[in-house]
Amino acid sequence: MIRVAVIAVGSELLGLDRLDTNSVRLTRVLNRYGAELETKVVVGDDVGLIADELRRLAGRVDLVVVSGGLGPTADDVTREAVCEAFGCTMRVEPAILEQIVARFSRHGLRMPMVNQKQAEVPKGARWVPNERGSAPGIVLERESCTICLLPGVPGEFDHLVESIVEPWLAERSEDRGIERAVVKVACLPESRVEERIAPAYPEFGRESITILARPGEIHLYASAAGTAAERSEHLSAMQRRLRELAGDAAFTDREEDGLETVVGGLLQTSGHTVSTAESCTGGLISERLTRVAGSSAYFAGGAVAYSNVSKIRDVGVAEGTVQSEGGVSEATARALAEGICERFGTDWGIGVTGIAGPGGGSDDKPVGTVHIAVAASSGDTSHRVRVFPGGRDRVRTQTAQWALDMLRRRLLVLPQLN
Amino acid sequence: MIRVAVIAVGSELLGLDRLDTNSVRLTRVLNRYGAELETKVVVGDDVGLIADELRRLAGRVDLVVVSGGLGPTADDVTREAVCEAFGCTMRVEPAILEQIVARFSRHGLRMPMVNQKQAEVPKGARWVPNERGSAPGIVLERESCTICLLPGVPGEFDHLVESIVEPWLAERSEDRGIERAVVKVACLPESRVEERIAPAYPEFGRESITILARPGEIHLYASAAGTAAERSEHLSAMQRRLRELAGDAAFTDREEDGLETVVGGLLQTSGHTVSTAESCTGGLISERLTRVAGSSAYFAGGAVAYSNVSKIRDVGVAEGTVQSEGGVSEATARALAEGICERFGTDWGIGVTGIAGPGGGSDDKPVGTVHIAVAASSGDTSHRVRVFPGGRDRVRTQTAQWALDMLRRRLLVLPQLN
Repeated sequence: MIRVAVIAVGSELLGLDRLDTNSVRLTRVLNRYGAELETKVVVGDDVGLIADELRRLAGRVDLVVVSGGLGPTADDVTREAVCEAFGCTMRVEPAILEQIVARFSRHGLRMPMVNQKQAEVPKGARWVPNERGSAPGIVLERESCTICLLPGVPGEFDHLVESIVEPWLAERSEDRGIERAVVKVACLPESRVEERIAPAYPEFGRESITILARPGEIHLYASAAGTAAERSEHLSAMQRRLRELAGDAAFTDREEDGLETVVGGLLQTSGHTVSTAESCTGGLISERLTRVAGSSAYFAGGAVAYSNVSKIRDVGVAEGTVQSEGGVSEATARALAEGICERFGTDWGIGVTGIAGPGGGSDDKPVGTVHIAVAASSGDTSHRVRVFPGGRDRVRTQTAQWALDMLRRRLLVLPQLN
Repeated sequence: MIRVAVIAVGSELLGLDRLDTNSVRLTRVLNRYGAELETKVVVGDDVGLIADELRRLAGRVDLVVVSGGLGPTADDVTREAVCEAFGCTMRVEPAILEQIVARFSRHGLRMPMVNQKQAEVPKGARWVPNERGSAPGIVLERESCTICLLPGVPGEFDHLVESIVEPWLAERSEDRGIERAVVKVACLPESRVEERIAPAYPEFGRESITILARPGEIHLYASAAGTAAERSEHLSAMQRRLRELAGDAAFTDREEDGLETVVGGLLQTSGHTVSTAESCTGGLISERLTRVAGSSAYFAGGAVAYSNVSKIRDVGVAEGTVQSEGGVSEATARALAEGICERFGTDWGIGVTGIAGPGGGSDDKPVGTVHIAVAASSGDTSHRVRVFPGGRDRVRTQTAQWALDMLRRRLLVLPQLN
């Protein structure tokens, strides 16, 4: 068993705002290769303390991954700590310097003097280019331990885990690991999902299934141990069974996909298009749809019709509807969906209007009341009204989830949730 | 300065779903009494590893707080680790046993045999009752270090922090604590901010200032130690100085405020209104603006003009402009800002168009190229073009930051960044 330790460097990680999350994504990679994360340590930007951790952990595990402290500023001291821990000196690597200068000039900027520091490498260590940022990865060997210094910025960290840590693990692993797979479920409460999937517990073992709840979305995690082939077979079987039990509320088994990705894929495949008319979500639904690369193929655009005037002028809701039924009403939501669909000449139109809070609620329409409609150019409009719990942010998130899921159900010709 | 270390015990904290968050709530308490969290360690349920951490940290800090591993099951080994670390033996405390038995019988249950283990206390340690669960807190002294063993369940942990750790701190703290304050800076690269604030390092001490970079935003944290009065005075002085050095790029010194909150406040105060015409951001700017409760007072609405057709039809960009200059161009961005401003009759209009990627780039207009414009109803339009680094998500985030900051600068009659 390969033993691994993580040192997350940064005083901010000892404060109130930030937790080390790099180690969690690293753990997924370690699991795949059957390596065991033995310890995580978080230390501040202190040369002596980082050096202490490096020394003791290098004497105990096979791989130490250090995250952070490679930036250009005075409080980035990981390189110095390595030199102190292992008694080496620093050299400036001209090739790195060149890459940093080039990186800045690509963006039309001159490299600030402070960034020169990022070209420093402890003697005896090798470095690995970082295409996503200015700090390269640094790798050194200390007796039987390999030490990897990676930048703390998540995208850069992941990138260098892939180009440094994964090959290192692949070379040493005996093809037995742990892996897990997800099934994502939309818009059902956790307790309902739990009831549905209960039959899978005795079939696969209670501890091999984990439920994680988020606003408007439940993630079911199945985990399996063994060789890559065993894992893959076992996980496919579990995913298949969980999807079957969760029913048509299960929308994907891909970790990286959200509802917007799935809906986008369905639109792309069918050659259909969509437009949005949003009030309380203020652009969140169009923002979700356009997170997906290539969304211009099916997303035509939308109106953020925040005021009643805009609902009438920009989406074509009848003035009488807004006046008699109110801006937050089934009739207005339907008119928003149908109006935007017609205006943009799309196959589908989404309309939402509601009271996200904290103000604006009444006995009749409490905070959290949301009307969601999905119109088809062919004429049939679906509508749901919900009173979502939680603050402004959660109400908006859940509204977007419902709108996207309602469209998904229309595209797949599934019944809407009640 | 009281120095503190946390050991979070539990193999689940080294997995994919759970992070140690007890230490974050503990940190808030420590800060209040002027104690400094020096290190956090996460270890699995392994007697040897926990014992190692206990020994080394007890030799280095004044207080070690251990969270977790006090449950009744075989993998709860924190007590055993203490005995191993410090060479003490275990005794069964009859008073604890009584309380556990009473606790079970209150719920009409007989105490399971395994729970007897929770009545064990390392010899020489004292114990503190836990009204919220069956594992008491355990406190022992090792030379100059106090070691507190607390249950990992958050409610129980917090409860025992209050009854054990707080009195311990209060006795030693002399009314001296640490507090911190933020200054947030918009749209400057980290290295440029570092250069600007460098004079503050010798003035206040390098370690009293921390820089945190996010896409399109830098947070400068100033921390001060002393009595409440000293802290408050020192922090005001530091914030004043950091704002002065950061210049007009500093946009707030309130932890809870983002650019959208600041811009919203300025609009509210001035009685001005704004509308948005977004292409590559797909609604992100309007979504940001409407995150703020009460934004309907100044946000009129917007168009997500994702296609050229929509730019022309819904915002009034001239067909000739799009054709001759292209959808991603200065002329189109200006026309979007001016068009939406006129259409919504607002005081300000924001227009953005760009190539968020990963596709759609060319030699002429590489991925990341974004044109941002802010128009005033009075006639003057600001424009900036940028080539942002990073993936689709970062390009969009940075675009929204620039758009909001450009509006902030207009509202405050400040020059635009270059």
